[in-house]
This record gives sequence, structure tokens and C-alpha cells, in this order.
Amino acid sequence: MPKVLGIVAEYNPFHKGHLYHLKKSVQLLQPDYTIAVMSGNFTQRGEPAIIDKWARTQMALENGIDVVLEIPTLYACQTAELFATAAVKILDQAGIVTHMSFGSEYHNIKDLDKIAMILAEEPLAFRELLKLNLDKGLSFPLARLKAIQQYNSNLQDGSLSSDLIDLILTGSNSILALEYLKTIKKLKSTIQPVLIPRLGSSYNAANMEGEFSSATSIRNAILSGKSWESIASALPDISLKILKASINQGRGPISLKSFEQLLFGIIRQASPEEIASWMDVEEGLENRIKRYALECTSIEEFLSKCKTKRYTYTRLQRVLIHGLLRIKTNDVARFQRRCGPSYLRILGFNSKATDILKNLKKTSKLPIITKPAHYYRHKTKDINSMFELDILASNLYALGFPNPEQRLGGQEFTQGVLMI
Amino acid sequence: MPKVLGIVAEYNPFHKGHLYHLKKSVQLLQPDYTIAVMSGNFTQRGEPAIIDKWARTQMALENGIDVVLEIPTLYACQTAELFATAAVKILDQAGIVTHMSFGSEYHNIKDLDKIAMILAEEPLAFRELLKLNLDKGLSFPLARLKAIQQYNSNLQDGSLSSDLIDLILTGSNSILALEYLKTIKKLKSTIQPVLIPRLGSSYNAANMEGEFSSATSIRNAILSGKSWESIASALPDISLKILKASINQGRGPISLKSFEQLLFGIIRQASPEEIASWMDVEEGLENRIKRYALECTSIEEFLSKCKTKRYTYTRLQRVLIHGLLRIKTNDVARFQRRCGPSYLRILGFNSKATDILKNLKKTSKLPIITKPAHYYRHKTKDINSMFELDILASNLYALGFPNPEQRLGGQEFTQGVLMI
Repeated sequence: MPKVLGIVAEYNPFHKGHLYHLKKSVQLLQPDYTIAVMSGNFTQRGEPAIIDKWARTQMALENGIDVVLEIPTLYACQTAELFATAAVKILDQAGIVTHMSFGSEYHNIKDLDKIAMILAEEPLAFRELLKLNLDKGLSFPLARLKAIQQYNSNLQDGSLSSDLIDLILTGSNSILALEYLKTIKKLKSTIQPVLIPRLGSSYNAANMEGEFSSATSIRNAILSGKSWESIASALPDISLKILKASINQGRGPISLKSFEQLLFGIIRQASPEEIASWMDVEEGLENRIKRYALECTSIEEFLSKCKTKRYTYTRLQRVLIHGLLRIKTNDVARFQRRCGPSYLRILGFNSKATDILKNLKKTSKLPIITKPAHYYRHKTKDINSMFELDILASNLYALGFPNPEQRLGGQEFTQGVLMI
Repeated sequence: MPKVLGIVAEYNPFHKGHLYHLKKSVQLLQPDYTIAVMSGNFTQRGEPAIIDKWARTQMALENGIDVVLEIPTLYACQTAELFATAAVKILDQAGIVTHMSFGSEYHNIKDLDKIAMILAEEPLAFRELLKLNLDKGLSFPLARLKAIQQYNSNLQDGSLSSDLIDLILTGSNSILALEYLKTIKKLKSTIQPVLIPRLGSSYNAANMEGEFSSATSIRNAILSGKSWESIASALPDISLKILKASINQGRGPISLKSFEQLLFGIIRQASPEEIASWMDVEEGLENRIKRYALECTSIEEFLSKCKTKRYTYTRLQRVLIHGLLRIKTNDVARFQRRCGPSYLRILGFNSKATDILKNLKKTSKLPIITKPAHYYRHKTKDINSMFELDILASNLYALGFPNPEQRLGGQEFTQGVLMI
């Protein structure tokens, strides 16, 4: 049985930190193949990706990934928990992934594992503490943090200090790592998790800091029109080349700003009741959204006015994407109850991957979509409606391209799977 | 009782033809007051007005109109029949309008009146002919034209030749004139209709032709960036000044192109079933709309590909506006059954009009809206939902302004009634 390494990533864009992670993982595990599960045109932070998923697939393949799968749009633009759970399920249900590597700000996997175990098993005492904290009006992340601290301090072998738990649960990548570990446990998956310590800036750092700059800071530099020279050092040469090609064709750079008219139009059109049905909108947030979409004239201003302690930028951005793509709380709940991610969508692969793809056809518990035009052959309603959201996402994403000629719909069907 | 002249117009923009019409009418009738019923931010041809309704109200007042009323958005962007009927109803229900003057390509009001009589009375024989023609698959306007010709030729005093009827029913303004006459008859209104022969180019002429150029040709010249010198000759000085001021503030010029992302986004988002519910969409047009919104990247291309003999540019443009404003066939039908236009919205007036406005409060059969912020005091559902469409229209129209700072929502409330 071949050794297959799975990686969950957005590659938005594929930078030197990503390359470091891939190389370190390969060095450590010596896998026969690497499979990446990647977000499509919209990402976990509630943003359109800076360049489209086909260009980012090419980046991944050219940098050494063998197969790129897409996380269905329904899950790509969700909380760390939903996103990570869906990604791990995809890797698990592929049936050939033996290892999974991920980065984390916190480097001790045993400590992470202890917390992941609480989250996976949800012992009664923990659930009661969580409920108590939520009843006090704390936001879910804070209530959960406190519940873990309280539960852990009551354990006889409660060896994690509260400060340590604080530290772990405030790192974006540590949180994702916890969710990966938790899901592996819950699924009783045979995938072996491997932690690769991160180098360089934290995930959220806004400004570039040399070779290992965060993807956020790289996107900010591109969007604010910084010189290519200043950006080049943070990207592998091939990533830079692909990024430049996308931008030269007028297929980037894309940001929420690229959809300003459409987003404001959708919100101004919608009734508060409709907005309340969008995923991640709760407890009157619809009124804030409605109000500031009238009182503001730019997305930046809208987000900064809407923001509260409880409603973070990321959450508000996700709400905007949910409104754009009409992702409703009820729909997500229904999919969660019924199926979870319901297909393996192959965005691209390299020549080496031919064998593993043959294998995948036998091992995968999920249907495989290589040719989008054939998706409707899967007569399952779940597959169809989940995949139609990927189609919609591409049809709307195209409207953000700076070059009007690139704004064609139906690119989901015309782009085809990428083979290098 | 004062003599009050009513005029239905879009003043998009107010040009020398409009001024000629106003002056001729005043010369002929010597009214004490003139009231214009004007489209708001969206017009009968299914387009956003080139500058907003407040600037166009100012144009009307500065050029000599005493009071400007707004046709509710629900009716402003409809077929000649719905538009004209609503406009005449507003004038009639104001309770003080004694005369109504309008232009027409065809100048003999007696002939127009004969046709209007058939349309108003709808004799059984005429209805049967109309049905027969519709059953043959003819479009409604053509079936109606043929039925009038056939019915008229069967009359003993059928003095109108088929060629003449042809001529009348192919002139945009003659068609509107017929609808005005028809509605006056149907309402048994005491308003006296007066026909003022038109000067200069026809309503639809695409290119400017000197002093009496059509509004369409003037808009085309502005939108294609022609020099002010070439446009100036067709506009009264004060109109030119107001137009320039709007454009200098970045509040124009506006066209369907200004809403390209929003329109494509709405159509790509919507299911064919939803599109089928929009006013003026019938018999599979939803599939054409859906298809070409994916296959096209500009509004111009979309309209030219969607167009057929049956679905004219004007109709398709109206469908786009109905999609934008969510105007549904069922809603229009419900309003038609229940009430028709359900308020008098005053956009502006001059100092001379103070007396007539006092009068209006006593004579009007419809509630008067002067302060939009107070509209909800009219607790009638019909008024509220009809007026909320005017609010939505302004909130979305603002998103088309070239200057981002002008794109605020809520301008319906902040602009206030214009007094000069």
C-alpha cells in the first residue's frame, strides 16, 4: 500500500511557507504521493481568493503536490470547525490517505491531542461547563476556551495550564490543528496526523516580514499595488509567474472590493428576514447588516461599522459570501445531518499521479467528479445541489475579474481538470 | 376653480422639445397651474434615468412646471398601457386637474379618439378578433393592431384606413396618447385632453438632430462622451446647468451599464423559476435570460443576444429592472386588482404652487406623501409596499453613481421635497 500524504490548504497564494511545509513533510514522511485539499474560489476567512482556483491548482502542482482536490464551496467558507471537519472527511473518505501534515503556532502535538480528545469525546462535565458559559452570554469560542480550562483543571492529570490553553486556542493554525485532530478521532480514521512547526509570521500578520510572510500580508501587498520586487521574495518563482500571468490576463487580483456593487445590491434588495436566514447570521445581526449597507458606501467602511466583539471581521466577511452564494443556515444543517462533503472534486494532478488516481476510483467512498459536465449523472440530490453551489461560486467569482472579457459564466465547465 | 394643466413626462433630461410642449400648452390653455407626473429613477423604457429624479425635478421646476409628482416605481417601468393608465389615474385622482396635454406623432385627435373608444369600450366583436389574432401566435401589440383594423373595417362609419391605423399604432407617442385618451374615457374623468403636435425627431431617434433632438439621442450623446457644445443646442440653458452639476458631483450619467455587475449577479444567482416570476417574463424567456447572462460579459451583448421579434430591447430592459427591483407579475396583478397607484408623491414645487397644494389636500382622493419619512403613518399595506419599492429603487439606483461617495442608501429620506 502506498504512503499517501494529505494536506489541507488554501494556497492563496502558494508561498514559501507552504513550500517549506510541503518539503518538511515530504522529508519527514517520505510519502509516495501528496494530495492537497484546497478551497475553491472563496476561502475560509470569507473572502474571494486573490486568483482563481485553477491558477492556484497550477501553483500547487508546479510546487510539488501530486493531486489537488476541492473542498465543496458549502464548506470552504465556514468556521474553522466546519471547514476542518469537511477537509479531513474528504481525505479520510478518499480511502488512500495514510498521513496528514499540518502547521501550528503551538508545536507540542501531545498537548494539542489532549484538548482535541476533550473536543472529540465531549464528556458530560465539559458539555455542562460549556453550556454554563454560553448562558453567561460569552461568544462560542470564548465559552469553549473557558470550558476547556475549567474541565482540564478538574482532571486529576490536568497537566495543561490555563495560560497554555489560552495560547493554543488563540492561534488560528492551532485551532485548525485541534479540529483536524478532533475529526480524525471522531471518524476513527486511520490517518496519522503529523505536526510540522510553522516558520515565520503568524497566519494573520498584516504586513510582510521577509521570506516567510503570511498569505494575508502577501495579498495585502498585491492588492495595494506594491512592487513585484517586494512581493517576489515571499513566493516561489513559479508561484510568482502564475500570479503575474493571472493578473496580466485581468483575472486578478480579486478581493471583496471586487464585488462591492453586487454585495451592496444584494443586501439592499433583501429583507431583514432573508438576511436572517443566511448562514452565520443570528440574533439581530441582520438589522446591523441592513443598516450599514445603507449607511456605508464601501465594503471596508461597512465591515468596520458592522464589527463588534461578537461579530468579527472574518465572520462578517463569511456572512457576505453566504449572502452572495445564498448559503443558508438550514441548508448547511441539512447537509450536515445527511451527508457532509459528498464528492471528491479533482481540480488537477500531475503525470506521476495517474496510478494513484486509478487506485482512488476503487478506494474512495465518495463519487469522484473529474469532468464537471458529467456531475448530473450522479443522480443524488445532495451531490447535485452541493455541486451546483460550486458552479454558482465560479459564475459569480468571474464577475469580479478586472478584465470584462474574462467574466464569462460556465467556467466550471470550460476550464477542465488541470494536468501537468 | 383654477384651471390646472397636467403633463405626463420623464424629462430624461428636460430638453427643448419638452419646453416647446410646455410653452405651447400654456399658450393654448392659459392654465393657472401646471402639474407634471414624472417617472422616478427608472423609466418606461426599462432604463435607469440618466440623472436622478431630484435633479430632473429641479429641471422641470426651473423650466416652468409648478408641481412635480412621481409615478410610483411599480408603474414607471411598465408597458405603455400600464404606465399611461397609472399616470392618468394620478392626475385624475388629484381632483384638481382640468386639462391634460400630450404630444403625438399623429396630429388628428379625432382619429385617435375613435381608436381610443374601441380600446376603452372593448366591444365583444373587437375582443373576439383580438383573441383570434392572439391564438394565431401574434404578439399582443400586433394582434391588437390587426383587431382594430378588422373591427374598424366592419363598422358602417369605419372611416379610418388600415394604413392610417398602422401609422398611429407604430408611433411611440401616438400609442401613449391613445392610452391617455382610453384611460380618461374609462375613468369617465372630467380632464380635457389636448393634443400638441410634436416638433423634431421621433421619440426613438438614436442620433441628435439639432435643436429638437429626442431624449434618447441626447442621452446617447452624453453617455458616449460627446462634447457639451454638441449637446447644448438641444437643451434649455438651465437643464444643461443642472445636468452638468449632477455629472460633476459624480451622480451621473447613469445607464444600464452602470449596474452591470449587479444585474449579471442577480440573474446568475437566480433560478429559472425565480426569473419566470419577474414581471414581463413569459413562455420560457427565463431560459434565454439565464443562458445569455452566463454566455455574455456585457449588458449590450446580453440584450442583443436575448432579443427576438417577440422580445424587444425595451421589454428585455424592463425585465432587467424588474429583476433588479424584484417586481413580480403577481404583485403587479394584485396592485392592479386592489388599488392602482395609491398615493400622490410630491417631488417638488415652486413658490407659486403653495395655494394649489393647499387645495390638493382637500381634493385628492389619494393620500399625499411629501415627507417620505412619514410614509409609514399611512397604515395601509398597499401604500407601504408600493412606496417601499420607491425606496428600494433609490437605494439601488445610488449604487450606479460614478462617485463612490454618492452611493449612500436612504436618499429617499435625506433628499427632501424640492422647493424653488
